Amino acid sequence: MAGDHSRSLGKGSAAPGPVPAGRVRLYSMRFCPYAQRTRLVLRAKGISHEVININLKNKPEWFFDKNPSGLVPVLETTKGQLIWESPITCEYLDEAFPEKKLMPSDPYERAFQKMLLEDFSKITSLVFKHVVAVKDGQDTTTLKAEIADKFGKLEEILSKRNTVFYGGNSISMLDYMIWPWFERLEPFQLKDSLNNTPKLQCWMEAMKEDPAVKATMTDPQTFKNYLQLYLANSPEACDYGL
Amino acid sequence: MAGDHSRSLGKGSAAPGPVPAGRVRLYSMRFCPYAQRTRLVLRAKGISHEVININLKNKPEWFFDKNPSGLVPVLETTKGQLIWESPITCEYLDEAFPEKKLMPSDPYERAFQKMLLEDFSKITSLVFKHVVAVKDGQDTTTLKAEIADKFGKLEEILSKRNTVFYGGNSISMLDYMIWPWFERLEPFQLKDSLNNTPKLQCWMEAMKEDPAVKATMTDPQTFKNYLQLYLANSPEACDYGL
Repeated sequence: MAGDHSRSLGKGSAAPGPVPAGRVRLYSMRFCPYAQRTRLVLRAKGISHEVININLKNKPEWFFDKNPSGLVPVLETTKGQLIWESPITCEYLDEAFPEKKLMPSDPYERAFQKMLLEDFSKITSLVFKHVVAVKDGQDTTTLKAEIADKFGKLEEILSKRNTVFYGGNSISMLDYMIWPWFERLEPFQLKDSLNNTPKLQCWMEAMKEDPAVKATMTDPQTFKNYLQLYLANSPEACDYGL
Repeated sequence: MAGDHSRSLGKGSAAPGPVPAGRVRLYSMRFCPYAQRTRLVLRAKGISHEVININLKNKPEWFFDKNPSGLVPVLETTKGQLIWESPITCEYLDEAFPEKKLMPSDPYERAFQKMLLEDFSKITSLVFKHVVAVKDGQDTTTLKAEIADKFGKLEEILSKRNTVFYGGNSISMLDYMIWPWFERLEPFQLKDSLNNTPKLQCWMEAMKEDPAVKATMTDPQTFKNYLQLYLANSPEACDYGL
């Protein structure tokens, strides 16, 4: 059984066979924001694919042959080619399946999206620090202020460009790349970080109308329950709710 | 005076005017390995450009308007567009000036180069740690072993592919991206890390024949003298030897 919501494979599982003709395979985990980037792109572009979920708290031995770092997402092709690192998987899909391009065609606009994405990696690490701080019952005032400040910079870009999305008035690659962290703001207890960013709020509302976003969305309560198990290193975390 | 070997601009200097028509401007520093990536690509592709060197130990106030992080390399176009982060500047140049493409055209090969580059960032941080450890008179045995191990992985790739360069038998983007650190192995006191990697040694010899590599090369003694000043935070470091 291979699908977005299939049970994860763990230690002792048999390695999957070759990727079926006409498909691309994604090694994923249902709640992973990085793997969600690739899932969004697969769906947005309508690429025929299968998903194999990996138990990240009890990784199969064979998975390290797919990616030595043991992280998801990983793409596998019918030729046995393996691609990891979420932005690289997404750019690969955009180039290998050129219909409905998600990256802009203009070289500067492409560079602009890559710079923003690079900068966004600081937000993802702050958000993760915040998750850990909340779990440990620490005061998060400073961290929250830092996160709100970064969101302020993202707000400015939408204001200056005066567009709904980051690449214009339709969704492009960067929107999908940053979306998974916005989807999780409520379970991350960071929803009020957007109080002073009306444009970002509108962007979120517009994103929620997108079919790929809708198809990969997890409700906040499910995510909260998963997160609790994940932070407790439970081998059941990745299969929560199945 | 704008050129690869011009004196650097520091605090109190006047901000340069618009980029002259038909050119692209690079904010650089003569000894910076990241900026050298962009200089290599500019030369390899024969792109008409000017170089403005920045005194990284005494940065001009206006430079933060070019890149808020204050780091080089930064590209500036005649339209006033600004591009930073060395891999992004290089991909931008390869896309905006499509003659003599340095990135492979095959999507998987492109992804392969990006994954290798991502992995190489671990080497650059180990090399930097080694520089600091040597300066502080610490024992570097473990660090050197780690670096040699990483070089072993790079050796394996050339062995498996059985090619002179990383993208085949002619130079491509990845070769230029990793070259600056190999050029500095002698002043970094890391030359013996290549003792067991004959393919990498051949690669280095082949790289040294490339015109862009030749044009941006710094002799080891000059680099050593610069490095001493740089590590002592001297405002003269970036202009050493001029």
